[in-house]
Amino acid sequence: MHDIQVAMREITLSASTDRDGNVYVNPPVTVYDTSGSYTDDSYEVDLTKGLPKLRQQWILDRGDVEELPGLSSEYGRMRHADKSLDYLRFEHVNTHPLKAKAGRCVTQYYYAKQGIITPEMEYVAIRENQRIDELKEKYKQHPGCPLGANIPATHITPEFVRDEIARGRAFLSANINHPETEPMIIGRNFLVKINANIGNSPTTSSIDEEVEKAVWAFRWGADTIMDLSTGKDIHETREWIIRNSPVPVGTVPLYQALEKIDGDVKNLSWEIYKDTLIEQCEQGVDYFTIHAGLLWKHIPMTLHRTTGIVSRGGAIMAKWMLQHQQESFLYMHFDEICEILASYDVGVSLGDGLRPGSIADANDRAQFGELEVLGELTHIARKHHVQVIIEGPGHVPMHLIQENMEKQLKVCDEAPFYTLGPLVCDIAPGYDHITSAIGGAMIGWMGTSMLCYVTQKEHLGLPDKMDVKEGVITFKLAAHAADLAKGFPGAQYRDNAMSKARFEFRWKDQFSLALDSEKAMQFHDSTLPDEGYKSTHYCSMCGEHFCSMKASMEVRELALEQKMEDVEIYL
Amino acid sequence: MHDIQVAMREITLSASTDRDGNVYVNPPVTVYDTSGSYTDDSYEVDLTKGLPKLRQQWILDRGDVEELPGLSSEYGRMRHADKSLDYLRFEHVNTHPLKAKAGRCVTQYYYAKQGIITPEMEYVAIRENQRIDELKEKYKQHPGCPLGANIPATHITPEFVRDEIARGRAFLSANINHPETEPMIIGRNFLVKINANIGNSPTTSSIDEEVEKAVWAFRWGADTIMDLSTGKDIHETREWIIRNSPVPVGTVPLYQALEKIDGDVKNLSWEIYKDTLIEQCEQGVDYFTIHAGLLWKHIPMTLHRTTGIVSRGGAIMAKWMLQHQQESFLYMHFDEICEILASYDVGVSLGDGLRPGSIADANDRAQFGELEVLGELTHIARKHHVQVIIEGPGHVPMHLIQENMEKQLKVCDEAPFYTLGPLVCDIAPGYDHITSAIGGAMIGWMGTSMLCYVTQKEHLGLPDKMDVKEGVITFKLAAHAADLAKGFPGAQYRDNAMSKARFEFRWKDQFSLALDSEKAMQFHDSTLPDEGYKSTHYCSMCGEHFCSMKASMEVRELALEQKMEDVEIYL
Repeated sequence: MHDIQVAMREITLSASTDRDGNVYVNPPVTVYDTSGSYTDDSYEVDLTKGLPKLRQQWILDRGDVEELPGLSSEYGRMRHADKSLDYLRFEHVNTHPLKAKAGRCVTQYYYAKQGIITPEMEYVAIRENQRIDELKEKYKQHPGCPLGANIPATHITPEFVRDEIARGRAFLSANINHPETEPMIIGRNFLVKINANIGNSPTTSSIDEEVEKAVWAFRWGADTIMDLSTGKDIHETREWIIRNSPVPVGTVPLYQALEKIDGDVKNLSWEIYKDTLIEQCEQGVDYFTIHAGLLWKHIPMTLHRTTGIVSRGGAIMAKWMLQHQQESFLYMHFDEICEILASYDVGVSLGDGLRPGSIADANDRAQFGELEVLGELTHIARKHHVQVIIEGPGHVPMHLIQENMEKQLKVCDEAPFYTLGPLVCDIAPGYDHITSAIGGAMIGWMGTSMLCYVTQKEHLGLPDKMDVKEGVITFKLAAHAADLAKGFPGAQYRDNAMSKARFEFRWKDQFSLALDSEKAMQFHDSTLPDEGYKSTHYCSMCGEHFCSMKASMEVRELALEQKMEDVEIYL
Repeated sequence: MHDIQVAMREITLSASTDRDGNVYVNPPVTVYDTSGSYTDDSYEVDLTKGLPKLRQQWILDRGDVEELPGLSSEYGRMRHADKSLDYLRFEHVNTHPLKAKAGRCVTQYYYAKQGIITPEMEYVAIRENQRIDELKEKYKQHPGCPLGANIPATHITPEFVRDEIARGRAFLSANINHPETEPMIIGRNFLVKINANIGNSPTTSSIDEEVEKAVWAFRWGADTIMDLSTGKDIHETREWIIRNSPVPVGTVPLYQALEKIDGDVKNLSWEIYKDTLIEQCEQGVDYFTIHAGLLWKHIPMTLHRTTGIVSRGGAIMAKWMLQHQQESFLYMHFDEICEILASYDVGVSLGDGLRPGSIADANDRAQFGELEVLGELTHIARKHHVQVIIEGPGHVPMHLIQENMEKQLKVCDEAPFYTLGPLVCDIAPGYDHITSAIGGAMIGWMGTSMLCYVTQKEHLGLPDKMDVKEGVITFKLAAHAADLAKGFPGAQYRDNAMSKARFEFRWKDQFSLALDSEKAMQFHDSTLPDEGYKSTHYCSMCGEHFCSMKASMEVRELALEQKMEDVEIYL
């Protein structure tokens, strides 16, 4: 066992008073927290310095890495040498990245298969349990509170984490060049995770804005972020984001490769792509979306589709194949890609270039044809000890969702599924965070490990900071609903604490326990702003006489007076 | 067959151009519309006059009603005689309401069982089909558009409507004193409907505000509204709402009964309640929520619950029973209630006083114990020819939703189910329109006929106009997702038209086809406001080089040039 401090957030609750006037404690609720040091009072935030390197010593202690004399990527060296970029460069760029020593393997998947429990694995075991054991102890000291009745036993052990990773059923994202990450795990026997996409676009936004969006996304609960920048200065923007990210960072390297050649798809090549991979591996990107499953043979299947190819990476690769009359270079070089990724423990997220972009195209032969190839690539990646997740749709009506999950588990040998929603209808632009949260909650319950958020701006424009927040919270609730439905031990504890606070009119505790405390309080205060209303036994919805919870309290009083059966209750 | 004009909305689309430069027409899309005359350009809105009485002649022509010499309700007469209320009274109050003649029955259910197809039944048959036949004709004239390929045949016939009503599987809400309604049907073999709750509360809002909220709710798609006023002047507020409502109006008469005795539950009585029922029947309320299934024997089952009784009506009745040591007067007088309702064709919505108010209480013996009684009451109501719907939960995690639907169908002999969400977790106050839309979409797919919206203010305060809109649109998309998943014929047509517009960058058509055109356009314009951007082949999300749809179009061009197989496609 290692000496490990695990990130968590403790929500302090006020006490309750029972009907006899006895005050009893409501023990604090510990929740999973992704916000990193930013919400630690003792930490002084300085984005120009970046976050502490939590994992650095663990990585070095394993003795499998070496520090390189310089950047391996030609483009990386060029950008770094360019003085004209100094003004936007992150100050403390590390030009001596780590890489696996020759003949060694540094992936968590490899260690797990060797039977090794890394500190990262221990970390996630503690993190997933959300201090259940400590909670049980607290209730022994405070037996008055009814919430303590059904707290489950600790269930996630470091051994279980290792086994799930070794089986390929879980992904512990941990680039050796991103030691700032607080380890987290993606797998269907763990809490459902969410990803938030950020990144600039050619038409809008700056580095500052994107870093701000990233920190904002961590704060509200993004378990990973993807930097999908397609605009200017992608290299520098990413450096700022990674150095300040306590969560794994994913990218689609194809986007930057295309930026390097000014958007002309025809000029894409394996060489440019490969250099981009290495550049990003050495910066610390934790996982890459690679659309290697879309092959020449699939293109005709897309021509009759209502919305063709809606994945950016997929459309780019299809265009390249037609222009060059060649099979996808991503597929042809997949072994080599895996060798590169394994040297840094970068995971591969096999992109679904043929995901349906409309209800009309859901579950068609193009989509499932590509999925078969993703299954084939999963086995190749595993052979190279590279961790794998599989991306999924898209636009899918509810009755076709389960087929997606079942096929994915079977074809991809249970590699974690990572879906974009799915959106369950096409006619609600402006509300697609909701159409996708519906599909996301359902497929999360069925076994998807991570949900990629969709913002309310989807199909309409680039999300701003508020859209990011709405998207993150919406997907946190969808993921949580999935955890509840899966019966994840301990997941319901926070709901129960919320419901108890609700029934007892502890308004401030309700705000504290909410996924979005600020909005909950703001909504409450919009009609009853005075401080006194935070202790009243009603709200503006029903007022005093029509508050069902208040009446229900009175029902309990009357029932007790009348010595109704079943009366040993808390009031 | 009757001569009937049915409410619908036609969305005009712009033309498309194929790759050879040929222009072809995209026929207009006809959609179900609840906004009544308010969105009819030829109609001059005057809230002080109320809406046209569309059904008046149909009702009179059946010869089963008589005009009463005056109001039957003592309270109604008193309010009407009170000069001090003149300033807030609806000007054209009808003091000669209609009632069934002695020995006659006026319910749509009764007519259906007699084999009679009423104009109301014909109306809903046409309305549910959304002019599929006309659409098929249009495509014959405009064969260029690929959307015409799979339009289903007309499937809802007047005979089918009658049969479903006669079977008790559908509810055609139609108080003879609310001739302003545009007939609609609630049943699981029809489009899933949504209800919006409005109404004042003791702490906030006025008649003007509530009427404005109601009209607003129709505009955005509420299929019925419930006036849940618990504040002042409930009688007058309701008159304004009903006279201006093209959709059925529901209420919980218990609320007004309680207002009449200043909120003191103890003073509630059958006499006050009965007079309230008659008062509201004669005003034109279309359905009543009646919490007659919560019995004395259920109260002990609620005492250990995490959130007790969260239904306002349920909590009030439980308190009354304990105060009086008597069985529920609603249950004891249920036959008499049905006799009253049958005389006006007011439907009963059997309230779930014991719905769970937290995940912890879902599917417990209190909830299902009450459901058994609702089944018993269903049979009593049917004996009196009263139309019945059954209310359902509440807070239910996803894995427990299906059990609710299955039990309800079985116990209540397939009477339409009308649920409040369900909310699939407890920890997202401020986002409960979303937690409930997830459960709502799922249970709608499984067979629920109508979803009661939940607004983002749920648990926090009284919704305002913008909350009502957000709630309505959110539930429209959930209901639509359910229609798609059920495979309702024609439901996907609008999605397909949207997806085609998306793929062809017809931005204005996308806005027109959206459930919320205003928000869709506003979001698009927030980053690219110039008019020119409404015809560009990209948006601010990806910009020009990274637009997958644009690249996908280019893929088609290339594929055609290269004579790839499968090339007879529309570009």
